[in-house]
Amino acid sequence: MTRKLSAIFFDVDDTLYSTTEFAKIARENAIDNMIKTGLNISLENGMKELLEVISEFPKNYELHFNKLLSRLGENTYKGINPNLIVAAGIIGYHETKHNKLKIHSDVEEVVKKLVTTKIPMGIITAGLTIKQAEKIIRLGFNKYIDPSLVFITDECGYSKTNPKFYQLAIDRLNVPANEILYIGDSPESDVDPSKAVGMISVLIKRGGKYSNATSKVPPDFTINDFYDLEKILKSEFSLKI
Amino acid sequence: MTRKLSAIFFDVDDTLYSTTEFAKIARENAIDNMIKTGLNISLENGMKELLEVISEFPKNYELHFNKLLSRLGENTYKGINPNLIVAAGIIGYHETKHNKLKIHSDVEEVVKKLVTTKIPMGIITAGLTIKQAEKIIRLGFNKYIDPSLVFITDECGYSKTNPKFYQLAIDRLNVPANEILYIGDSPESDVDPSKAVGMISVLIKRGGKYSNATSKVPPDFTINDFYDLEKILKSEFSLKI
Repeated sequence: MTRKLSAIFFDVDDTLYSTTEFAKIARENAIDNMIKTGLNISLENGMKELLEVISEFPKNYELHFNKLLSRLGENTYKGINPNLIVAAGIIGYHETKHNKLKIHSDVEEVVKKLVTTKIPMGIITAGLTIKQAEKIIRLGFNKYIDPSLVFITDECGYSKTNPKFYQLAIDRLNVPANEILYIGDSPESDVDPSKAVGMISVLIKRGGKYSNATSKVPPDFTINDFYDLEKILKSEFSLKI
Repeated sequence: MTRKLSAIFFDVDDTLYSTTEFAKIARENAIDNMIKTGLNISLENGMKELLEVISEFPKNYELHFNKLLSRLGENTYKGINPNLIVAAGIIGYHETKHNKLKIHSDVEEVVKKLVTTKIPMGIITAGLTIKQAEKIIRLGFNKYIDPSLVFITDECGYSKTNPKFYQLAIDRLNVPANEILYIGDSPESDVDPSKAVGMISVLIKRGGKYSNATSKVPPDFTINDFYDLEKILKSEFSLKI
């Protein structure tokens, strides 16, 4: 029996690209640029301390570098205006966005095929509005989706675990929830709330940060990459791609 | 008669690089990227409206793009989440920093020679701390100066027209003010206050925004570019470069 598919939504972080890997490279480039500007520490120690700062002071990475310098102390940047070192960190981080923010190749390959089906595709993601919008644009993902179907928690006023957030997407499309497929990597923030509103929930497991977490309600499908998604779309929904 | 020279300070904007030209290119790239993301306006009209926004709401360009969209109205971005267009604008602006923030070639050439004299060089500049520090790093100017000799209005708590701001540099160096040369492009913000504390004041006129302004006290020297500066340093201060 074939199920009807009316729309597909994607999570962004660790679904379209490896946020975990990107963050590691961006932070390393930041510390590296700080060292080049005169900060006297090893990359290893800098990373260790920065990760501690991030765990203690979430969000707004620009201030993370200020806090890092507060901890390392003046003797690590003797005679250098510390703002030059903070700026070097920010630049190092930003340059990584310019160079390294790339969509997974399996995502690109499969989504390009999905565009030909004319099934509306969109984004449901958690984070700060402009930061998430920036990721979509930098990844070039806006060209594959209907740009009216972008839902960001900060913009919409919900958290990702609230099923009402997913209901916004259903209301916008005006199709039954059980014809809408949603793919994300978090059992708690993606699977549970999308199931709560009756969507078809796909859990993607790329070995990221939620590899040990489980959802209260099992997802409809579990995949390792978008090639697995392609198979499901063909077998369960008879998609011709 | 030869005068003694103990230090040289530089303004940043429209002295080390053309801030006016950079801002124009960055804004055009922002509007261009917004158009590519679906904003339905001409580059010309977009620039005209953006300049109006900037004149009415100074600082913080990220919100400028939001205000621009508010003015242009929904019919210019029908069906597109406006945050995607704002993000595209921000990315277009930032990419320009990555590609186009370059020191004037005459500045680079002359300052490279000045490094060999071992005369301390520094920065005295107006603006937001991290934005000004970012410019110094992106321009690569930190490698030519003593990185302890960086004074930014926002960091120091003064405005550029307050002579006390310039006094900070004198106190840091602990040399007579009349042995310190300062180069900037604004008669009111650079010449008058540096003269008020007794520095040697050089006005650079590259045809920028202050071309019609005059200082209350005349500068010691007026130059068109850093080649003129080089001549003065040789003739008046017997610098061997």
